Parts: sequence; structure tokens; C-alpha cells
Amino acid sequence: MDLLKQKILSEGRVIGTEILKVDSFLNHQVDPALMKAIGVEFASLFANQGITKVMTIESSGITPAVFTGLELGVPVIFAKKTASRNLDTETYHAAVHSFTRGGEYIIRVSKRYLSADDTVLFIDDFLARGRALLGLLEIAGQAGAKVAGAGVVIEKGFQDGGSLIRNMGIRVESLAIIKDMSEEGSVITFEEETKQVTHMEEEEK
Amino acid sequence: MDLLKQKILSEGRVIGTEILKVDSFLNHQVDPALMKAIGVEFASLFANQGITKVMTIESSGITPAVFTGLELGVPVIFAKKTASRNLDTETYHAAVHSFTRGGEYIIRVSKRYLSADDTVLFIDDFLARGRALLGLLEIAGQAGAKVAGAGVVIEKGFQDGGSLIRNMGIRVESLAIIKDMSEEGSVITFEEETKQVTHMEEEEK
Repeated sequence: MDLLKQKILSEGRVIGTEILKVDSFLNHQVDPALMKAIGVEFASLFANQGITKVMTIESSGITPAVFTGLELGVPVIFAKKTASRNLDTETYHAAVHSFTRGGEYIIRVSKRYLSADDTVLFIDDFLARGRALLGLLEIAGQAGAKVAGAGVVIEKGFQDGGSLIRNMGIRVESLAIIKDMSEEGSVITFEEETKQVTHMEEEEK
Repeated sequence: MDLLKQKILSEGRVIGTEILKVDSFLNHQVDPALMKAIGVEFASLFANQGITKVMTIESSGITPAVFTGLELGVPVIFAKKTASRNLDTETYHAAVHSFTRGGEYIIRVSKRYLSADDTVLFIDDFLARGRALLGLLEIAGQAGAKVAGAGVVIEKGFQDGGSLIRNMGIRVESLAIIKDMSEEGSVITFEEETKQVTHMEEEEK
């Protein structure tokens, strides 16, 4: 998605070898018009898949998820990271390891909002090691829901999450896949939809 | 806002005397079309106020805030509740007491995204004791930003947050103000825009 890649190149800041800061438009300050365009793109990529719910994890996934849900005309669930008096006691839950924060956290979804009748689309801001998507997959599994796939805003192609999830047979669509990045000179290079090209070549054989 | 009040009456669940569960459409599962309508309403209420940023606190305020920002054509900042490697070290911060969760938490906004040149609109899902808005006011004050007011989806009119914030001279617009609620029979009654009526009567004198 060119608009997104341009924004990453103009505003992204590389820290060390693994951190890409995009908090000017994605996960602290948010650019609503770009988020809307991202929602339109995900809805187009996953059109006609019978999706009944969009799912994400609070907080940074909420904005792209809600615009996707708006376009698809379905509700959006955000899994909660913290226990609260306001959450139902009957929940699906999964442990998620966080490399960013260190340690594990538990994500919870009320059983009231997800069932075997649902087909879900996962949306998240980042895909790096894939642990958040594994957690959402576990929750969908507990509910017996079908999984249409995952829409990711930015995938760190140099980490193993993308292949981990794709190798499970889950369709993953990332709007920008970072091949390499370096703090020195803040260089960011993208993969040029390598997976799609490979797939097309195989079909042509 | 009638659409919202109808949704509260049809899907809200009253627990005890103080908890209104609206997690089917506002703060766990989200109805994107309703959230969009809420954003349009806030943008209309606060039109022509020179607003440059919409601010909220993660997570439940994000959805109404981002649709408000989309309509106003300005960025949305969500204050972070948790420290993270991904947040700048230079932040404005404030302590917020939570009656829902018990205890205090710290909210943080990167100094990069808020300054004395900004005029901010706060958006939140609930106004009860007003502590979240006090935290946002403190952060705006640290930045020297002007405050256009606060847009609240649901105000618990029987708690003191609304008068606390209004008595500070802050304009607060709540789309639904709950006057009374009771778990017995799940009765919810709304204030019928008492403040506006009073204000009009004064003008007519």
C-alpha cells in the first residue's frame, strides 16, 4: 500500500535493529484518514469471505480494525489485556508473550461475543514474532470460530512471525512488509510483495 | 443522541448501582457505524473551535475519538497507560485514580505531539468521577495547550465528575446522560438535556 509506505519512509524512526517507531500516525498519535484508507484496503482484500466479526487486541490494533469493520459492516471485538470489573467473568483467554514489553499478558474475550457461528478476521498494527496472532488464534479456536485470515498494517519481514502464521495455513495480508531497516541513516526497505509474485509464478507453471 | 440512547436501552446491562455494561457496542465489542455517527456528532458540536488535536486515553476512548478526528480533519492522540520501549522518554504524564480497576495509573503523552500551539478536544467513552478528564487536563496544561472541551459518549449524571469538570469552566458535551439506573428490571433513565434547557431559559429571561 503505497500511501502507507510513503508515510513509513517520511515519519518512521528506526531505533536499534528491531524497533520501528511509527507513533506519529499509527500507535500513539493516529492519522484518521490514513487509518480509514487502511480499513478500506483490508475490507477489499478480505471481501466475500463471509466475515462476521473483526478481532484485534487493545490498543494499537483498534483503529485499523474499526475502519475495517465499518467497511465490512460487521462488529469489531478488541481482546482485553487487563482484568476489569466491567468484563464478563465468562471469557475465552490466552497467554501472549510480549517481546516489546517483556513478560506475558493474558488476553480475554467475553464468550457473549464469539461463537462457532462466526468467521473472524484478525487485524493488528504490527506482525513481528506473531505472538499476538497466536493468542487470537487460540481464542478463535476456543470459540470454534472460523478464521478468514489476518490483516497486518506493518510486518517485520526480517522476523519469524509472518512465516510462523502462514505455515499454519492462515492467510496473512500485510500492507507493508519491511525487509531491512537500519538506525544508521534511518534506512527502511520494503519487500515488493514477494509472496504474491511467487504464488503467481507457481500458478503459471 | 437518540440512536445512542436507544442502543443503551436495548443492550445496556445494569450491574449493582454503579456499573453500566455497554460492552456489546462501546468498550469490548464495538459497533463501527454507531461510533462513526458519534464522531460526526462530536465534530458538529465542536465545529469552528480551532481544534488541532483530539485526545483520549487508551483503550475505550479510541474509537469515538478517531471518528471525531476523521470528521474534524485532525490527528488523534491516545494517552498511554503503560510504559513501553516504543514510547518516547520525553513525555507529559499524569496520575489517574481508577474507581473501576482500583488504584492509580499513569497516563503518558509524548512531548513530540502536543505543544502550546495546539487546541485540544478530549473524547472519552464514560464520564463518572471525572478522573480521566482531570488527567488529560493536567497533560494539556503541561503542554500549554488550549482546551476546547470534552466530548463524552455516556455520562453518569448521578456521579460527580460532570459537575467537577464543568465547574472548572470546561465545556462538556455528553451524548447520553444517565440520571438513574437500577439493576432491578434493568431500568435506565436519561436526563433530558437539562443543562441546555436551563441555559436557554436563562437566555430568554
